[in-house]
Amino acid sequence: MNLEPISELLHRARDRRPLVHHITNYVTVNDCANITLAAGGSPVMADAIEEAAQIASVASSLVLNMGTLRSLTVESMVAAGKAANAAGGPVVFDPVGAGASDFRTRTAKRILEEVGISILRGNVSEISCVAGLESRTRGVDAADEGGADRAELALSLSRKLGCAVVITGRTDTVAYGSAVYLVDNGVAEMSNLTGTGCMLTSILGVMIGAGPERKLEAAAAGTLVMGIAGELALASLQAAGRQGSGSFRAALHDQVSLMTPETLVRRAKIRENG
Amino acid sequence: MNLEPISELLHRARDRRPLVHHITNYVTVNDCANITLAAGGSPVMADAIEEAAQIASVASSLVLNMGTLRSLTVESMVAAGKAANAAGGPVVFDPVGAGASDFRTRTAKRILEEVGISILRGNVSEISCVAGLESRTRGVDAADEGGADRAELALSLSRKLGCAVVITGRTDTVAYGSAVYLVDNGVAEMSNLTGTGCMLTSILGVMIGAGPERKLEAAAAGTLVMGIAGELALASLQAAGRQGSGSFRAALHDQVSLMTPETLVRRAKIRENG
Amino acid sequence: MNLEPISELLHRARDRRPLVHHITNYVTVNDCANITLAAGGSPVMADAIEEAAQIASVASSLVLNMGTLRSLTVESMVAAGKAANAAGGPVVFDPVGAGASDFRTRTAKRILEEVGISILRGNVSEISCVAGLESRTRGVDAADEGGADRAELALSLSRKLGCAVVITGRTDTVAYGSAVYLVDNGVAEMSNLTGTGCMLTSILGVMIGAGPERKLEAAAAGTLVMGIAGELALASLQAAGRQGSGSFRAALHDQVSLMTPETLVRRAKIRENG
Repeated sequence: MNLEPISELLHRARDRRPLVHHITNYVTVNDCANITLAAGGSPVMADAIEEAAQIASVASSLVLNMGTLRSLTVESMVAAGKAANAAGGPVVFDPVGAGASDFRTRTAKRILEEVGISILRGNVSEISCVAGLESRTRGVDAADEGGADRAELALSLSRKLGCAVVITGRTDTVAYGSAVYLVDNGVAEMSNLTGTGCMLTSILGVMIGAGPERKLEAAAAGTLVMGIAGELALASLQAAGRQGSGSFRAALHDQVSLMTPETLVRRAKIRENG
Repeated sequence: MNLEPISELLHRARDRRPLVHHITNYVTVNDCANITLAAGGSPVMADAIEEAAQIASVASSLVLNMGTLRSLTVESMVAAGKAANAAGGPVVFDPVGAGASDFRTRTAKRILEEVGISILRGNVSEISCVAGLESRTRGVDAADEGGADRAELALSLSRKLGCAVVITGRTDTVAYGSAVYLVDNGVAEMSNLTGTGCMLTSILGVMIGAGPERKLEAAAAGTLVMGIAGELALASLQAAGRQGSGSFRAALHDQVSLMTPETLVRRAKIRENG
Repeated sequence: MNLEPISELLHRARDRRPLVHHITNYVTVNDCANITLAAGGSPVMADAIEEAAQIASVASSLVLNMGTLRSLTVESMVAAGKAANAAGGPVVFDPVGAGASDFRTRTAKRILEEVGISILRGNVSEISCVAGLESRTRGVDAADEGGADRAELALSLSRKLGCAVVITGRTDTVAYGSAVYLVDNGVAEMSNLTGTGCMLTSILGVMIGAGPERKLEAAAAGTLVMGIAGELALASLQAAGRQGSGSFRAALHDQVSLMTPETLVRRAKIRENG
């Protein structure tokens, strides 16, 4: 398949430096800010109700991440989401832990009802919960349950919400319109690090900020950047005779910051479903 | 002494992946999440009153850390603590900065009155404050004041609260029931890093989550994992000709993630008091 | 020029370990705590209104950073600032994103009206906003717009507020009273990392905590420590054949923790303006 429209978004991001407004959690927020810079964007974290809408209305994209939800920030998420919608700015939504508590499930539903989303990303439990299917969420780190119906799940949700859907797992599923891509990049070490999902969501914010009209390509670009960076991070550590989660974390940031469109094309393990 | 019942908890943690619910501070929360993963647990950070009790009631253990206290999260701590108690889940409490402000001292006392604790961890100032003794807390990084009466302090507080007590310092003191262990692992570099205390508390959450009925062994296991990892981190940097606090931090995470029960047994400097 | 009064503050900081109270943002707070330790200080992060004033009144210095502003923490900032003023403790203010939203601009003005500041630090957009000049702030990462009138801007604001002013950019401008220093240390890689500005502000908190009466020297010392550490971090990575933002971050912390007064004097690129 032709990867040019996908890899071009990384090029564009580094060229235009989209301003990515985040309302996110306090666990991985620093990683999200640094990975946004590494991928070519400029992060702004602002969740006060006094400024959320104002900043969202001038940002290139808005990332809403439910990692550590609070009632006050839910209001800011909705206000910022509406402001982004009004200004034509794309919104990326990460329903972290949807299904793990009634509060999270309720909030995910409210955001999807009140805010137009461009890209939705989660693991299979979270996306299943959002889709109203039965789900067995266990905390925020869902077990990877496999299953061939992910493509269908992603596709039907994409149609229902009018957004690209990314379901991450051993194989990542990226869907929009009638297209489904499967991405086989990434390494198991990423699941031993907190925030790899959040970081991917931030990178999606950079990519859609660089090309708001290209939901499918932005979803694929972000997913590829993260997966390939994970592989290169592991390889760089092995070459240096190092291992462990602290070194892997730094190496992952390194590889996102060093990623080029050429590397993306060369290493992408992406295929159309079916 | 027989370290098998202690080291086995690390093995069990990696096998069972206990879900460790944290209500903690926003300074070291990312380190706490990553060290929980490194030690074999699965972290979930959730402090909203709307969900704290619900998540605590299904988690393997609950960690309450007062690092950056707010009135709203105090209510969540109490609600989550009671829910954990009702569900039979162990609670680890880190009274960060107790004695440094009236608010913190008051909150530590409230939590101990309303929530049943399995392991209490702090430096000597914080533990002294909790014990109602005179204390000279200076911010959250207490000077290490020495003193042979730590064993007595830990033991009497352990009996009063019915929990294991860990007092960290140059030598760590671990007490429960009639037993007191002294641990001499660890390196001075750890005190030049923020959050080593919080991280130890999270590891204690993993260990007690893996063996809720074994308070003394879990307290000792976590203390040993952290101290030994610090030693191995320093050694790995020295072998590579590197130094500095940023490298030490990554190396510390590395070594926790690479720790095995065998390494724990081989390197443990632990003895019974007296 | 004689760098002895500047470098001596680093020596003093490592000797006295000033307690630096922060009310800051949740994005870079961990970096701020770790860099405070690396520079020789002891960090305490506390923003609850119940304790902010009490802790500020005993700390060696107070750092107010608007990175992620909330209405509740604004009250804590004002209360802590007044308590620090009453106790004679110096206050460092970082008006992150002033001009990026009305809420931030309004808050910066309020803090400057109600709290006496010892050192003010920001990029040229933020400082221009504070000075009431026209500004084109774009998120919190302002473009470096150049301009020879920074010295004048810093000097006039320094006189108006009675504090030292640091404007960071390719060349950093440090002003107090009638003196203006220009600092040419630092590397471009620092702007690809979130929080280098916040970290500098924390180091300024350490330096002014070590010498409250020496605003100009403390402002220069902190600026030099950060810039030189950035150069040494880049050099250390190049020597090791490594690159990328994750490695650079760890190396930057390393070099601040390893910085000596001698290195500061030897590598300082500082000159008086004019």
